[in-house]
Amino acid sequence: MRILVVNVNTTESITETIAQQARAVASPGTEIVGLTPYFGAESVEGNFESYLAAIAVMDRVMAYDQPFDAVIQAGYGEHGREGLQELLNVPVVDITEAAASTAMFLGHAYSVVTTLDRTVPLIEDRLKLAGLYQRCASVRASGMAVLELEEDPLAAMEAIVRQAELAIREDKAEVICLGCGGMAGLDEQIRQRTGVPVVDGVTAAVTIAESLVRLGLSTSKIRTYATPRPKKIIGWPR
Amino acid sequence: MRILVVNVNTTESITETIAQQARAVASPGTEIVGLTPYFGAESVEGNFESYLAAIAVMDRVMAYDQPFDAVIQAGYGEHGREGLQELLNVPVVDITEAAASTAMFLGHAYSVVTTLDRTVPLIEDRLKLAGLYQRCASVRASGMAVLELEEDPLAAMEAIVRQAELAIREDKAEVICLGCGGMAGLDEQIRQRTGVPVVDGVTAAVTIAESLVRLGLSTSKIRTYATPRPKKIIGWPR
Amino acid sequence: MRILVVNVNTTESITETIAQQARAVASPGTEIVGLTPYFGAESVEGNFESYLAAIAVMDRVMAYDQPFDAVIQAGYGEHGREGLQELLNVPVVDITEAAASTAMFLGHAYSVVTTLDRTVPLIEDRLKLAGLYQRCASVRASGMAVLELEEDPLAAMEAIVRQAELAIREDKAEVICLGCGGMAGLDEQIRQRTGVPVVDGVTAAVTIAESLVRLGLSTSKIRTYATPRPKKIIGWPR
Amino acid sequence: MRILVVNVNTTESITETIAQQARAVASPGTEIVGLTPYFGAESVEGNFESYLAAIAVMDRVMAYDQPFDAVIQAGYGEHGREGLQELLNVPVVDITEAAASTAMFLGHAYSVVTTLDRTVPLIEDRLKLAGLYQRCASVRASGMAVLELEEDPLAAMEAIVRQAELAIREDKAEVICLGCGGMAGLDEQIRQRTGVPVVDGVTAAVTIAESLVRLGLSTSKIRTYATPRPKKIIGWPR
Amino acid sequence: MRILVVNVNTTESITETIAQQARAVASPGTEIVGLTPYFGAESVEGNFESYLAAIAVMDRVMAYDQPFDAVIQAGYGEHGREGLQELLNVPVVDITEAAASTAMFLGHAYSVVTTLDRTVPLIEDRLKLAGLYQRCASVRASGMAVLELEEDPLAAMEAIVRQAELAIREDKAEVICLGCGGMAGLDEQIRQRTGVPVVDGVTAAVTIAESLVRLGLSTSKIRTYATPRPKKIIGWPR
Amino acid sequence: MRILVVNVNTTESITETIAQQARAVASPGTEIVGLTPYFGAESVEGNFESYLAAIAVMDRVMAYDQPFDAVIQAGYGEHGREGLQELLNVPVVDITEAAASTAMFLGHAYSVVTTLDRTVPLIEDRLKLAGLYQRCASVRASGMAVLELEEDPLAAMEAIVRQAELAIREDKAEVICLGCGGMAGLDEQIRQRTGVPVVDGVTAAVTIAESLVRLGLSTSKIRTYATPRPKKIIGWPR
Repeated sequence: MRILVVNVNTTESITETIAQQARAVASPGTEIVGLTPYFGAESVEGNFESYLAAIAVMDRVMAYDQPFDAVIQAGYGEHGREGLQELLNVPVVDITEAAASTAMFLGHAYSVVTTLDRTVPLIEDRLKLAGLYQRCASVRASGMAVLELEEDPLAAMEAIVRQAELAIREDKAEVICLGCGGMAGLDEQIRQRTGVPVVDGVTAAVTIAESLVRLGLSTSKIRTYATPRPKKIIGWPR
Repeated sequence: MRILVVNVNTTESITETIAQQARAVASPGTEIVGLTPYFGAESVEGNFESYLAAIAVMDRVMAYDQPFDAVIQAGYGEHGREGLQELLNVPVVDITEAAASTAMFLGHAYSVVTTLDRTVPLIEDRLKLAGLYQRCASVRASGMAVLELEEDPLAAMEAIVRQAELAIREDKAEVICLGCGGMAGLDEQIRQRTGVPVVDGVTAAVTIAESLVRLGLSTSKIRTYATPRPKKIIGWPR
Repeated sequence: MRILVVNVNTTESITETIAQQARAVASPGTEIVGLTPYFGAESVEGNFESYLAAIAVMDRVMAYDQPFDAVIQAGYGEHGREGLQELLNVPVVDITEAAASTAMFLGHAYSVVTTLDRTVPLIEDRLKLAGLYQRCASVRASGMAVLELEEDPLAAMEAIVRQAELAIREDKAEVICLGCGGMAGLDEQIRQRTGVPVVDGVTAAVTIAESLVRLGLSTSKIRTYATPRPKKIIGWPR
Repeated sequence: MRILVVNVNTTESITETIAQQARAVASPGTEIVGLTPYFGAESVEGNFESYLAAIAVMDRVMAYDQPFDAVIQAGYGEHGREGLQELLNVPVVDITEAAASTAMFLGHAYSVVTTLDRTVPLIEDRLKLAGLYQRCASVRASGMAVLELEEDPLAAMEAIVRQAELAIREDKAEVICLGCGGMAGLDEQIRQRTGVPVVDGVTAAVTIAESLVRLGLSTSKIRTYATPRPKKIIGWPR
Repeated sequence: MRILVVNVNTTESITETIAQQARAVASPGTEIVGLTPYFGAESVEGNFESYLAAIAVMDRVMAYDQPFDAVIQAGYGEHGREGLQELLNVPVVDITEAAASTAMFLGHAYSVVTTLDRTVPLIEDRLKLAGLYQRCASVRASGMAVLELEEDPLAAMEAIVRQAELAIREDKAEVICLGCGGMAGLDEQIRQRTGVPVVDGVTAAVTIAESLVRLGLSTSKIRTYATPRPKKIIGWPR
Repeated sequence: MRILVVNVNTTESITETIAQQARAVASPGTEIVGLTPYFGAESVEGNFESYLAAIAVMDRVMAYDQPFDAVIQAGYGEHGREGLQELLNVPVVDITEAAASTAMFLGHAYSVVTTLDRTVPLIEDRLKLAGLYQRCASVRASGMAVLELEEDPLAAMEAIVRQAELAIREDKAEVICLGCGGMAGLDEQIRQRTGVPVVDGVTAAVTIAESLVRLGLSTSKIRTYATPRPKKIIGWPR
């Protein structure tokens, strides 16, 4: 089984971190292919960049010329998953939803700890549309930008733990979701520090994608995610 | 005052229809500029096309080289409005929200009559995120594709009236919103046929955009719609 | 075009403030007529007074003997708008809804800053019924009674700014609505102090009322707001 | 114990029907006093009439010059209960809420069968504000006006049973609430015809009012329903 | 009329406290029978114990060999009420719902003060399913375990008052519900200390059960609470 | 890895069907152990039977004397999962939630087709509490009792397909969940007949349980699902 794990930003090192994290939990026999979009922002922290990423991710997946069995969109709170579902016949898993869906099996309420405050409403909106928000205790920002996670991992860890502890104590979260693809790999440490289960969206998405393939299930094509109607399109594919 | 009215598809004749409709209600002294995206689909009827439109609309607005006072995104149920709000300092009005917001001043519940069934969930989702769905009685599809509205206006009128009447009788709608930018100009006839107020999103958006400008109000830049942070972006602007 | 702007209390000076504020944004050619109810309380700060105002406003409008094109009910969070909609064939705009509806075009979430704590539930309930509450971050009380706004405008300003700042910082509001007709005229100063858009319900209502008239739209009369059935009524009109 | 049961319309015969129904379930030692407003409409079927009734009910209760222990507002879906709660220190029970609250102890979902279609949104809105709507399967109109209930009781019975049966079969209601004070006394027959519990708001309200008095409980006066502040009021009391 | 008041735990002294509290408000002619389950936990403070109690309560009621007119399940936030409704033809009243339903007649919002933090989600979930959560301002834990209420009533009183005051000041509660059957009898003192109405679920349930019997109403048997189908069951009745 | 798959009824043949279905998708190296409760009903179709099953499932799992890595509760819409989560330190997966959670990755809305109409509210309530109901288009009953699924599989298939088709056409479902553990194995046929993805809760639960184990995640023990406090319990373990 081959699963494409697509980063939403153009920073190759983040793609690599994500892909390694994915490989760490993939079943034997599952090949993880990390993809970086050909265009877009070096980090995605807002609606403009996220819309650009939506198209860039679709573009990158359509340009991939080998067969594959599932796609993971590895951006937290980003636009675009529905477009991929229309274009493809294989399952598409968004890490925002994968993390929330997994967290809900583990506790009565979960919180997300993400990067900048400005991305909080995006994550909340995606969870609301996905129908996964009811048991969300809070979405909290650590104040660390995406690229700072790489540049100063120790400070990032502290900032994330601080917000996770507040989520547990004040918002009554019982599970923490790591709200950024670039936080891949921090889960175990944060679990030890906070004493609650910590869900990383990338690894959760890998197990869900594998499961869907194993169950022979893929996107329903009868209405919302039907294949686009044939029509004249300018500037696509690039 | 200059207001940009941006079509979401690449069909010039639809841009022209929309711009004319906008001019019909614009105040003296308001200049309406109709814009057609440089890329994208000839009609937008699904998520993939809508995400492409989101970027194409932002691209077209950023390429406009004259000053302007407000922007209207003239696609019903489409992605992208939040991106424009980040990029611009002038008010941005989406016709989906303009129509719903206006309808809510006119009756206890409103319905939207749109084109194809596959676009219904997109419209519902946009209204839900906008916080304008509670008083929505239904979103109904006429079964007419966007381009068929131009090709066979008589059949389109009949199909829209049929669904509007069902919305009134079965869903208890008291107001009808025309759920497609391409339906601009049909409102008066449908009002006469159904006996209820009919809201066209384009004209509603023009009055709202003018009002915001007149009131000296524009998008709040403190959090969700703050200007994007400076960063390296590949492939933008085109 | 003639728009009646009806105060909900019997204090003439407040009617005058409101009418002046309305005139400041009215289009050339729009005549603003300020009306004070013939009965009711000198300020409206609770349900009893608000129900009395509901009838007093209807009474005052029905007693007006000139033609008019729209009515604005200029009380924040008050009862009665639905009754006016039944009695009239012209558009009726409530400033509570006008402010919220306008704020939602400007930011992801808005807060209302009003007078006394006891009026907070009334405002929340009106916004809930209007279907405009989902994006309301909070309704906060400044602690200033309606008449104190006139008596001590400096203290009022400070108290309002304090709550607005808390709404922004703690409740994540991105827009502030001034929650009292008597706050008309304070918007610009508060915007400068807080750095976010500030919506005054009276001016917002004027632009909405003008827009509805311009669009040829008025209240749907087919169900909820149908003209009252002819029947024997005692004590009305007064 | 003395309980005031206040009709919302000015039709004495309806007041009498309601009071008799109330007496039929009152405990020994409970005196039921039926009151008819001094002004208002002969039947209440819409917002204008309902707002007028709100004030007329408060007026009638304030004019009552004997001590009393509780007040029942005997109009289904009407405005005004909150005003009474401010003015009084004894419990106030609205029959809309009494019926819904009682029905929820009897089945998983309940429906209301009322008079005219135009009153349906009023009832729904009152139930929503009261926080009692979640388990409401539907509010259905029999098409019989309030006064027709008295004029043609047989036709009324048939029309109500027809809608009750539809509510059970199509909306999955398990309990029926009679949605009009003037339906008092029909419950037993409708129960026999439909096979489900039928709740009459007037009798339900009597038991709730008696219970609150017995438990020594009355309206909380600390915030929403605090006694109105002393202020100058014109035209009140009449 | 005979009403069974069934404790959910196996501590006889708590059954006695509850029964006495019930008798204090029962009408003349109402016999209160306190029942203690034959099996289960000495106090119920979590899901496992609550599910065990659900069965134990049903078991105890089915083993009661005298006629009775209504059953009260005297555990706050516990599972099982729906099972009793299937097994019996007389009304079943849960004290969680009785308290909330009563509180909603007394103020705009109510809070529950319960025992341990771990029981808060159970209570919230029961109120949500019951459709009585919308006007719940908060559920707060006093930190006192069920049995500590008996062992150290003074400390319990202080802990409950502290949380009640926080509920009033911070959560804007206007009414307090005592969130544990074992708190029976504390209501009057807490009312004096906090100045707001305090609802005890047991006494509220007695008046509701009596009312339903008096009104001739019982559980609807047409769908959700229909009598169980005849089938082979192992290990029941015990 | 060893996963316990626990039937909720006492019919061994259904346990066997479920276990076989589970084995069909289990990974190599995963041992599936099917367990039948020692007491309870031969089929679970209502609240009383479901509460009995809740305890019987916990009892059966606690009596299992070998190590295990996860537990699947294989009853659709049944009570009890939260109790297991308190008692155990390994992940617990309920098939109702597993199916819904999986369906939400496959389409915009899903429907459940279950057995008898009386079980519909149970399923809806479990989905509501689980926070998985927002995207549920409908829960429909086939009218086939649990044991009839075994006795007349052809009739069952037809009845399920009929409701699935209605769910797709009328309720706009894009995915179908099989709403009964006893429907295990019917998914492929129904998918072929309806053209949409069909999710079987048992197989979905197996992949989720395996995933949680693989990710090193288990139930959060800090609040709602903390281990029960030590206390005196009568009649447990049996």
